[in-house]
Amino acid sequence: MRIRCEVNYIIFDKKSEMNIPELTDIQSAHSRIKSFIHNTPVLKSQQLNELFNCELFFKCENFQKVGAFKFRGATNAVLSLSPREKQRGVVTHSSGNHAAALALAAKMNGLRANIVMPGNAPVVKKNAVAGYGAEITFCEPTLQAREDATRQIMEKTGATLIHPYDNFNVICGQGTAALELLQEKDDIEIVITPVGGGGLLSGTSTFVKGINKKIQVIGAEPLNANDAFISFTSGILTPSVNPVTCADGLLTSLSELTFSIIRKNVDRILTAKEDSIIECMLLVWERMKIIIEPSSATVLAVVKENPGLFERKKIGLIISGGNVDFRSLPF
Amino acid sequence: MRIRCEVNYIIFDKKSEMNIPELTDIQSAHSRIKSFIHNTPVLKSQQLNELFNCELFFKCENFQKVGAFKFRGATNAVLSLSPREKQRGVVTHSSGNHAAALALAAKMNGLRANIVMPGNAPVVKKNAVAGYGAEITFCEPTLQAREDATRQIMEKTGATLIHPYDNFNVICGQGTAALELLQEKDDIEIVITPVGGGGLLSGTSTFVKGINKKIQVIGAEPLNANDAFISFTSGILTPSVNPVTCADGLLTSLSELTFSIIRKNVDRILTAKEDSIIECMLLVWERMKIIIEPSSATVLAVVKENPGLFERKKIGLIISGGNVDFRSLPF
Repeated sequence: MRIRCEVNYIIFDKKSEMNIPELTDIQSAHSRIKSFIHNTPVLKSQQLNELFNCELFFKCENFQKVGAFKFRGATNAVLSLSPREKQRGVVTHSSGNHAAALALAAKMNGLRANIVMPGNAPVVKKNAVAGYGAEITFCEPTLQAREDATRQIMEKTGATLIHPYDNFNVICGQGTAALELLQEKDDIEIVITPVGGGGLLSGTSTFVKGINKKIQVIGAEPLNANDAFISFTSGILTPSVNPVTCADGLLTSLSELTFSIIRKNVDRILTAKEDSIIECMLLVWERMKIIIEPSSATVLAVVKENPGLFERKKIGLIISGGNVDFRSLPF
Repeated sequence: MRIRCEVNYIIFDKKSEMNIPELTDIQSAHSRIKSFIHNTPVLKSQQLNELFNCELFFKCENFQKVGAFKFRGATNAVLSLSPREKQRGVVTHSSGNHAAALALAAKMNGLRANIVMPGNAPVVKKNAVAGYGAEITFCEPTLQAREDATRQIMEKTGATLIHPYDNFNVICGQGTAALELLQEKDDIEIVITPVGGGGLLSGTSTFVKGINKKIQVIGAEPLNANDAFISFTSGILTPSVNPVTCADGLLTSLSELTFSIIRKNVDRILTAKEDSIIECMLLVWERMKIIIEPSSATVLAVVKENPGLFERKKIGLIISGGNVDFRSLPF
């Protein structure tokens, strides 16, 4: 069982913090990025429909470039920069899918990217980012070290920070997966996305509620990293402290920006136990023959754990990614 | 590393043994089965194309019903029976993909199916076959016991034996994957399939050479189970004795029927080492986010091991299946 802890991101970019996206912002983002991204397939499985007694539509962002939806937000952020900003490049601190996504988005648009990573990040992740031509700045594995390194790069190069989720343009990009899902299947009644930092859920809920308020939007979160659930039900932003879950893409906590969007647009947050997440990941591998990462399995796990809520419904599931370390599987 | 040994199939059905299929037989089979099967997608991967310096087109039979191309042949065999034969049902001895394929093909057409399996077959395989409504007859794990049990069922019920590959109609069904591949991508220069008993390679080569003699057809075989390579190069049918390979779908040896078709239509047999097979399976999982079984990875492994043969070519790879025991992975 792979277990990892990660510190939360700190927000540098206070000025854009409470700029709340609207439906048209997601639509504009899609026009902007659609020639750069894959319009990923929407897959079905008769076996899983029978098993869960509902109709499931999997929007497969595991087939997106870099293997995750993160490429949508990173591309939209890069393309939204001014010519002068583009010249100065971009920077982020991440060791996950956002790092690879920003590196590739920058490369495809001729920008320099600098990625701050802890020196102890997995070699495979370092190689992925380096393979996309980004410059990597290694730092100590602490939040302070990451922030200091990022600030130094910003001061030295004038690069723009592209935060993984606390960023208006990133959120708008992430919402385009739901746009494509509803373009292909317009009678969906419920849309479920994983929730970590909340970028995907913010973008998705903004689009879905903008198009049709009757469609329910649900966030799926590991019980072991349930800051969104606690924040949502209490009304008070409450970050997780050192969460431990196999869904390693969902360790981060909501920001003020994503929390405010989610409070406005999302119907509920449901949590899933570790066993359910792993079981549902294996179910999808076995029955659908596609690789999804544990974070993505969380959306199916909440369906499994709450059968009464979903019976006979048409449900869109945003499968966030397929980046798995096969030499360290959680089963 | 999963290692398994399996005895070869013995041919009961001598009378149809040397009935050699032709192009029109594959085309007829496709008309017969197309409303029952999935027309599986043909996928590409820019990363793998760059890595191997050629253009690869993956015909994804891992997305076929029961997770393998075997459903094509089993369905064609079932649909080709006379009304009287249909009434008496079908029987086979297998613990692999063919057993599940025949069980489902029979169920979908209202036939009884009896599957002879060794008592020590994996529970997951027993459950799959039972889940499709077939009757299972357990026997000792020896060839003699399997044959005796099968013969007893045939004598008692009048059921027709549907051999996994030494069967005209099964071979014709298997050839329909190549038909769909070339329908979708007609400028392919080379087609590669795995070769175990030779049903898939026989059907594929019959179709491909029937359509265009200039397209090369290559069989890919594990070096550790290289009976097809030895038979093909020596001209003498030479079954493997207790082969050991991670590609557990390719343990069986050619029959006289498949050998004669392969000698006529196939350009070459190439072998792949175990390490290459496992490496290529992982490559496809990681880069394409799809589950393929080790047998399927053999086709990519021969490309990897023989770069000079494939440089800048357009290559169709028949991905035979995606049934993997995730709790016993070969890496």
